[in-house]
Amino acid sequence: MHTYRVVVAYDGTGYSGWQVQPGRETVQGWVIRAARPLLGEGVRVTGASRTDAGVHALRQTVSIKGTRAVPAAVVARALNAELPRDIRVVGCAEADAGFDARRAAAGKRYVYLIEDGTVPTPFLLRYAWHLPWRLDVAVMRRALAPLRGRHDFSAFRAAAGRDHEPTCVIRALHVVRRRHRIALFVSADRFLHHMVRNIVGSAVEVGRGARPPEWLGDVLASHDRRRAGPTAPAPGLTLLRVMY
Amino acid sequence: MHTYRVVVAYDGTGYSGWQVQPGRETVQGWVIRAARPLLGEGVRVTGASRTDAGVHALRQTVSIKGTRAVPAAVVARALNAELPRDIRVVGCAEADAGFDARRAAAGKRYVYLIEDGTVPTPFLLRYAWHLPWRLDVAVMRRALAPLRGRHDFSAFRAAAGRDHEPTCVIRALHVVRRRHRIALFVSADRFLHHMVRNIVGSAVEVGRGARPPEWLGDVLASHDRRRAGPTAPAPGLTLLRVMY
Repeated sequence: MHTYRVVVAYDGTGYSGWQVQPGRETVQGWVIRAARPLLGEGVRVTGASRTDAGVHALRQTVSIKGTRAVPAAVVARALNAELPRDIRVVGCAEADAGFDARRAAAGKRYVYLIEDGTVPTPFLLRYAWHLPWRLDVAVMRRALAPLRGRHDFSAFRAAAGRDHEPTCVIRALHVVRRRHRIALFVSADRFLHHMVRNIVGSAVEVGRGARPPEWLGDVLASHDRRRAGPTAPAPGLTLLRVMY
Repeated sequence: MHTYRVVVAYDGTGYSGWQVQPGRETVQGWVIRAARPLLGEGVRVTGASRTDAGVHALRQTVSIKGTRAVPAAVVARALNAELPRDIRVVGCAEADAGFDARRAAAGKRYVYLIEDGTVPTPFLLRYAWHLPWRLDVAVMRRALAPLRGRHDFSAFRAAAGRDHEPTCVIRALHVVRRRHRIALFVSADRFLHHMVRNIVGSAVEVGRGARPPEWLGDVLASHDRRRAGPTAPAPGLTLLRVMY
């Protein structure tokens, strides 16, 4: 087995997420099809993050295993020649045979973009969540502070969660505003399904004044998904990088 | 006649440019259709810049004239309710009856985006010109310097130019690099058709080393379109604002 550690950037707008699903256009499906002619029919492709439909990636890390030995630079060029233009291999290196991009990941970093002007910018339609209210970023920062560190994040996982272990360590969480654009950065050792989008949806409830800042800590402590805010829409979310 | 001064932002990717053409989706065509129910069948819509197919605008200024008196805020909301999401009214005010967005314009500012990494970023496909060579920005700046000020720009106009008077005053022209992204900003009192894209196409010839820096000044002085470089593609170009 020959293993490659491949870094992939994609605009998720046109795809039903990372993971292969029958009859759907997925990023993993495209990478498998692109890799087959070079690395053989039995090629195995594993992404560190199973991004949802509409979610983007600046640097998704992918392990690709095949039976043929090909120089890494050739793999990168061959994949880019086959992939659509909105999926790009931006890095490729040979890896240890045992490397698995998902299991080896020590952490991930995401950003969620919000735009809170009265009129949504046409250029951010695919990349940001537009809200008609002016959000109070200082209050959002205060509300989010209790989420840093090791916690049971059951309250922020998808209702039909695929994750059994609910404990994650949020290592960094910050909110930056520039005019009408707000970016919420989150780094953690691991994430539950929909965790970033549920945290964002809840932080927005606080930022628009519908809930007091203490509410977010109470939701976390409740471990009860039904108490959190709505799930923020997928297009605002981008996987920034995977740490090893 | 009631006249409105309307500021419009659009992602030009899906449109055959600003100006109405039979059987084509154009931005002006959409604004006319959106304005009719409110301002009457005889509504007149004039944009300061006739942007080409695929060119974007952050703040295009448009004069809209109709026979009905409607508060400006109502006009803005009504237009946004009818326009597609990638065309947005971002400002609207009542104007003097004689205001014409094109004739009254005292200047315009454009930016042209280039990406010169080996792999094009999926997120910039619609907004930047990707080039596989590393461009020398310092040399491009030197080469572009002679274009500042009042000149006959015949060498940089479209081959089948619609402009008779070839004299323009470039008030500002600068090149900024951030990693693999290069932005070329140009302000002038007026622009000939394809002028920014022809200047960019020629500056790239210098930046990639195909021509010496002095060449750009020689092309300008020649007044000969055939001597300039290729026309840079439309998607890299964005109208930033119109000055009055």
